[in-house]
This record gives sequence, structure tokens and C-alpha cells, in this order.
Amino acid sequence: MLQIDQYLQAQAARFEEELCEFLRIASISADPQHRPDMERAAAWLAEQFARLGFASEVIPTERHPLVFAQSPEVPGAPTVLVYGHYDVQPVEPLQMWLSPPFEPTRRDGNLYARGATDDKGQMLTHIKSAEAWLRVRGRLPVNLKYIIEGEEEVGSVSLEQYLESHADRLACDCVVISDGAQFAPGVPAITYGLRGIAYYELRLSGPNRDLHSGSFGGTVTNPANALVRILSALVDERGRVQLPGFYDDVIPLTPRERRQIAELPFDEQQYLAQVGVENSTGEEGYSLLERRWARPTYDINGLWSGYQGEGAKTVLPATAGAKFSFRLVPNQQPAKITAALKQRIAELCPPGVRWELLDLHGSPGVLIPLDSPYVEAAARAIERAFGRRPVYTREGGSIPVVGKFHQVLRCPVLLLGWGRDDDNTHSPNEKFSLEDFHRGIRASVWLWEEIACLQS
Amino acid sequence: MLQIDQYLQAQAARFEEELCEFLRIASISADPQHRPDMERAAAWLAEQFARLGFASEVIPTERHPLVFAQSPEVPGAPTVLVYGHYDVQPVEPLQMWLSPPFEPTRRDGNLYARGATDDKGQMLTHIKSAEAWLRVRGRLPVNLKYIIEGEEEVGSVSLEQYLESHADRLACDCVVISDGAQFAPGVPAITYGLRGIAYYELRLSGPNRDLHSGSFGGTVTNPANALVRILSALVDERGRVQLPGFYDDVIPLTPRERRQIAELPFDEQQYLAQVGVENSTGEEGYSLLERRWARPTYDINGLWSGYQGEGAKTVLPATAGAKFSFRLVPNQQPAKITAALKQRIAELCPPGVRWELLDLHGSPGVLIPLDSPYVEAAARAIERAFGRRPVYTREGGSIPVVGKFHQVLRCPVLLLGWGRDDDNTHSPNEKFSLEDFHRGIRASVWLWEEIACLQS
Repeated sequence: MLQIDQYLQAQAARFEEELCEFLRIASISADPQHRPDMERAAAWLAEQFARLGFASEVIPTERHPLVFAQSPEVPGAPTVLVYGHYDVQPVEPLQMWLSPPFEPTRRDGNLYARGATDDKGQMLTHIKSAEAWLRVRGRLPVNLKYIIEGEEEVGSVSLEQYLESHADRLACDCVVISDGAQFAPGVPAITYGLRGIAYYELRLSGPNRDLHSGSFGGTVTNPANALVRILSALVDERGRVQLPGFYDDVIPLTPRERRQIAELPFDEQQYLAQVGVENSTGEEGYSLLERRWARPTYDINGLWSGYQGEGAKTVLPATAGAKFSFRLVPNQQPAKITAALKQRIAELCPPGVRWELLDLHGSPGVLIPLDSPYVEAAARAIERAFGRRPVYTREGGSIPVVGKFHQVLRCPVLLLGWGRDDDNTHSPNEKFSLEDFHRGIRASVWLWEEIACLQS
Repeated sequence: MLQIDQYLQAQAARFEEELCEFLRIASISADPQHRPDMERAAAWLAEQFARLGFASEVIPTERHPLVFAQSPEVPGAPTVLVYGHYDVQPVEPLQMWLSPPFEPTRRDGNLYARGATDDKGQMLTHIKSAEAWLRVRGRLPVNLKYIIEGEEEVGSVSLEQYLESHADRLACDCVVISDGAQFAPGVPAITYGLRGIAYYELRLSGPNRDLHSGSFGGTVTNPANALVRILSALVDERGRVQLPGFYDDVIPLTPRERRQIAELPFDEQQYLAQVGVENSTGEEGYSLLERRWARPTYDINGLWSGYQGEGAKTVLPATAGAKFSFRLVPNQQPAKITAALKQRIAELCPPGVRWELLDLHGSPGVLIPLDSPYVEAAARAIERAFGRRPVYTREGGSIPVVGKFHQVLRCPVLLLGWGRDDDNTHSPNEKFSLEDFHRGIRASVWLWEEIACLQS
């Protein structure tokens, strides 16, 4: 591996230059004017793969092309699928950028450009690691496949369709994704769990028109009163969901997980201060990070009824509605939650009000077993490159595409974020630390090696 | 009284003609273009009073003039203050009118015009009754004062100010208002009670911006969750308000009232069907009309928070708000309710959320004792004119000006509606039955007589 390290050092400047080249392509997926840039970015990637001797294909979709590539077969070796995306967020407000978003600029050891960390820079680490193996050793220790999309920032519709219809082509032993952050600078992390979601809209209707609350109050059921009664009955004052069977399938935190989470360098007061609140509330018996990552929640996302303008209007509203969602944890099934919810709403809804529940969106959580050999392999690879063992973290949100990979390909998904929390993802002055770029490449080099060793 | 009856019959056609004259004045208070019509309507009234030999005054205000008139003194006799309004609602949608709104038209025994029943026709009955007494008997049996405003449809601001500052000038033994409807056609009513109101806006704020419900759900208190918890805790599932002391000052329905209400010809299913609901809910142990008229309520009038658009947005909202109100019954004091409410919200509001309560509007209910001699006098007068005893009703809403009269002048307020529920008040094709117009005048003639008899 010494030779590979020497190669990485020798090529470091060129790797950075190639990243800059990639970053100069303004591949903003949300903006139809940038469609030619999307094509250029996909072609740029295909060219990268071609240089490595990989079979690669730019796959047209209804929106932005997918890029698929595959290394020559390494018989008997495991197969790794690398996922990334070449599309970037819009750049507004432009005047907030210290250097133009598509003119990559070095400052203080960082490379500033839209897409630097999200996801061009991080994705490229897994291509450059392959290059190093091939140029130095003449072969890869694993089979590599790449699926790189151009719609991550706009919903991943084409990728999800492709995944469903081409599961065989994408088949692998594990998926590797670098599209996130370390836990703290120099504290790399493996994210092994994501929460799922079940998102609903509840619509209540009562009288056939808004009524005068004096003439009708006390006689006609008020849909807004019914709404708050139903919504508040679904949870207790500590945030514990009140639906029969809701917690039945929850995979509890293991003692190891709780110990690991407790040991993380996390400042609760600083976390709350950044969003401007003094106190947190939440389920009894769990720390803030445990509640955030590994416990289900119930949040009202939107509410509406009656008069929302200035001053007083004495209306008994005809309708009331809400959007609300449960964050689910691994093994909870959205369909089962929906069934319990419908039954509970039917019980809670008072006479004189009709209800309709729209099931807007559901996806289960993801949990990669911590004792998976692939997780162990990634931990060893990261330790080699970062000089310390990664911490193990989960995410409170869901990354739909990760859930989809997990569900369709039925293998571990390794989320290995090389970036930092202050990389200004989606904001002006997005950056990627050049140190993180290079140690990301090095971690990737080792990752192929460590995964290859699992086989033997 | 036979002579007066003969006079009324002889003058009936002229009375109708004078009403038509009054109705031709397009005195729409909401429309600044009709300001000259407002002046004309006030002048028309002043002229009516002048013909009777009353001292009358058109009082300029910041908006539309008030008309005050006073009969020559009748020593030793009670004083009655008649209230009415000469302003009318706008006429849109104009194309829905079968005849032009300001060209009074007779059809099927009705006079169709904007203002026919609300309130020009009803108000005029109390002027024509005075005329009859004066022309036939040469004297009035009571002292009469009239205060007629031009802002009833736009908030009565000027009248309320005048009432506060000129309570002495308006001092009287009872107030008479005809600006409503009979209980059913031919079933006249005396309305002896109105509900009051205490109207609030509650504003909750949590984090300093909308947050991602995945990253923050379960750790940061959601203001929308807090809102539904607070709002739903203020009432039980049958509509009984859950505030300490809320019912302490409620004047309970008397057995006589409950019997009277039970005897009213009221079809609950028809009432519910007209607003499109199949079932009603409400406080246990009370009939629908009792709940509507004589029991306090709690209604949410408006709700808002977070995302109200199409589809799903996984936001943990920074703020949430509601407008809600209690309908109060006589003797409940808005200020006392506000104090109890603030204390309860402080208890219910979870850590991490700040709250602010705006007290938007409060007025107490009104209750005229059923055994008041003035109520008895009005009942006898109505029986003479309508051929049957009136029923006794209350109103679920509040009429702010009635509460104000009751509070400032500290005397009974008699609400004697001559109109009908289907008079299309505030709608196209407003009408007033000519039969109701004439028996209104006759009831008013008798009212002066019956009130005069109270003194002896």
C-alpha cells in the first residue's frame, strides 16, 4: 500500500485540478436552463470511467441522465456499488458568495465551489481510489459498480425507477455513499441508521359553509375543535405516541449503541442555542441524541382552519386540516402505522364531522447491523486514513434513496461522510476541505482492500 | 284605542308610501360613494320627527350622522328610548335581485327593497305609532326618545362613543329595538337574552426558524404540537369548558325558561340539515336550543402553522397560532375568563415554547329578567297586535350595541323583532311583509299604552 500512498501524493495536485474541472460545470438540476450542463457533467464522468477502462454508459431518463459504470470483472471478489450525484443546488443568493460558485477557489485549505462537498468532491474520492489501485497494482481488489444520478437535489425520481427495473444490474454486496459529514472535524463517522417517515394529511369537514359562531356555537360540531382533539390525542405530553401497537416493532437501542452515543462529543446546550430554544422536550428515558436518531416522533407539520387574518372573526369553520408525520425507526412499517391511525381517528372523530386521511408519503427506516463485517471493514479503512476509529452515528431524517437501495438491493449501505457540518451545503460559499478530499481518497483505497479481505 | 286602529287603517297606504320613500334612499354605509345618501336618509328621519313636533337633531360624527329626537315632555310618564339604524347593507350581487334594490316593489304581500326589514321598515313602525297617538289623542302616553344611527352595518363606532358621552341625554326606563325576526311567521318573540363573547388570539413560538423535522423532531418542542395540546385541553369531548371557575358565574336556566324553550316549535333535524350536518354535539344535559342560547361555548375560529400547501413538507414549524373564543352567558365576566385562561395556558405550555395571548374582544352577555314589568308590557302589546302571546327567546350571538345600551343605560332592553327568518337580510331580494309592517305599528301603539300603565 506504500506504493499507492506515494501515487496519491504524486497525483494530489492533478486530482484537485480534475475536481476543479468537474466543479466548473454548473450542473444545477432544478434549473431547466442548465440542462446542457447536466449533459456535460454526465459526459465528464463517463470520460473518467472510460480512462480507467470501465464499461460506462450515460443513461437518458425523462429528466437528467444517469451514469452507470462497471470495472472489469475481478473473479471471486465482492462487488461494491458506489452511489453519488453530479447535480448541485441552485446558487442564490449569488451576492453572498465570496468567489463565484462555479469558479473553484482555494482559501485556507478549502476548495470553494457549488458542489464541492455535495457531492462532486466526495463522489470523486471513490473514482480516484480506483484509479490509484489500477495505476499502481494494475488491478482492483473488488468489483466496482457506480451509479451516479443528476436528480438528487430534485427528488431522485429517475434513479428510483431505474433501481426498481435494473436491480440485477446493480446487484452488489454492499453500497457505499459519501454524501455527508464527519461527526466533527477529524472525527469521522459511519452512519448506520436512518429514521423512516409516515406523512399524512388529515382533512375534516363539518357544516356546508362557515357559520356564525354565535348562532351555531354549541350546536354544530366545530371541525377545528375536532382537529385539535384528534391531533393532541395521538401523543402524550412527553411526546410518546398514543397509537395501539405503535412501539411493537421498534428495534430498541442496544447497550452498545447507547454507550457509543453517550460517548460522543455533543453539546446539548449549543445544539439548542443554535435554533434559539432554551429547553428541549421529548420522550422520557432517552438522551437528546437517542431521541433524535433512534426514537420515533410525532410532529405536526402544518395546520389550517377558519380565519387567519387580522383581528377577530366569529366564524365556526366549515373545514380544518393538518399535515403531520411520524418519524419511524427501523422495523416500524408505514402501512401498519396507517392502519392503526385510521382506526384511532375513527374513534376520536366526533359526530357531525367527516374525516379523510391522505397517506402522502411513507418509507421505513434503515438500520445496518453494527456488527456487519462491511461496517467493520469501513471502520478499519477510515482509521487508516483519518488516524482514528470512526464513531457510529444515526440520522434523524430519512434519505429516501438510501432506504430504496437498502430495500431493493438487500445489502448493507455504508454512509461514509467525508465532509464537515460547516461546509455550507445548499448555502452560499459551499466548500470542501482539501484535507478531507485527500483522506477520503485514501480511506476509499483502503476500503476496497478491507472489503476484499472479507472474502478470504 | 278603536280610534287609533281606525287611523292606522286609514293611513295604511300612506305609511307604506312613506316607507317606500325612505327605501329609495340608497344609504349603504360601507360605500363612501353613498355618503350623500347617508345625509339624505338622516335628513328624511329628522323631517319625520319635525312633523310630529319632536325636537330632533342630526348629529355629525366622524363617519355617518346620528339622528336624535325627543317628544315633548309627558310629565310623570316613563321614558322609552327607541333605537334603530337607517344604514343598509351593500346590494351585491346585483344580478340576483328580481327588482332593483332601491326601487321598492310589492309582490305577494311583501315589499322588496334593500333595508325593507333591516332596519328601515321595522324602525318606522315606532315612529308611525307615535304619529297615531298624536294625531288621534293629541298626546303620547309616554316620553319617547329616538337614537338612530347610520353605522350599524359597519360597527356602530360613532353610536358607542355617543352613548358613553351622552348617557344622560339618552337616559330612559327601557330601550326598544325592532331589528330582528319573529320566531316563526305569526309567532312573535321577545328576545330577552344574548350571549357575550371573549375572543382571543394565541401565538406560540419555538425555534428561531422552521426546522427539518427529521433532524430536529423529538428534540425541539414543536409549537404546533403544543398548540393542539393547549387548545384541546380547554374543553372536554362534550364541549364543556375546562377552565377553573368558568361556570361559577353562569346564571342557570330557570325551570320556566327550560319549559318555554322546550315548547317552542323547533325542528332540530331541519336546523342541522340546513347547514349540512347529520349530528350535533354539545354539552350533556341540555337541549340544542338551550346550548345555543344559554350555555357558554368554546370555538376555535382560526388555526395556522407550518406548511399549508400541496403535498408533504417535513417542517417542524417555528410558530403556530389560533383564534378562539368563548361565547359567554349572562353574568360571566370576560376579564375573569381572561385571567383563568392565562393561568391555564401557562400551566399547559411545554418547555421550549413561548406564548402570547392577545385579548381581541370581550363583552358580557345580556339578560332581561323575564318577570320585568317591561317584558310583561311588551308581551301584552304584542298579543294585541299579533293575536297571540309572544314566545320568549334568547340569541346565541351578541349584538354589541344591545350590550352597550344595557351596560350604559342600566335598564331593560326589549328586542321585538317584527321580521321573518326568510326576509333575506343582507342578501338579494330583501323584503318585509306588509302585514308585519302594519302589525308592528299596531304593537308599538299598544306598547306605549302598556308601558304607560306600568307607572300608575
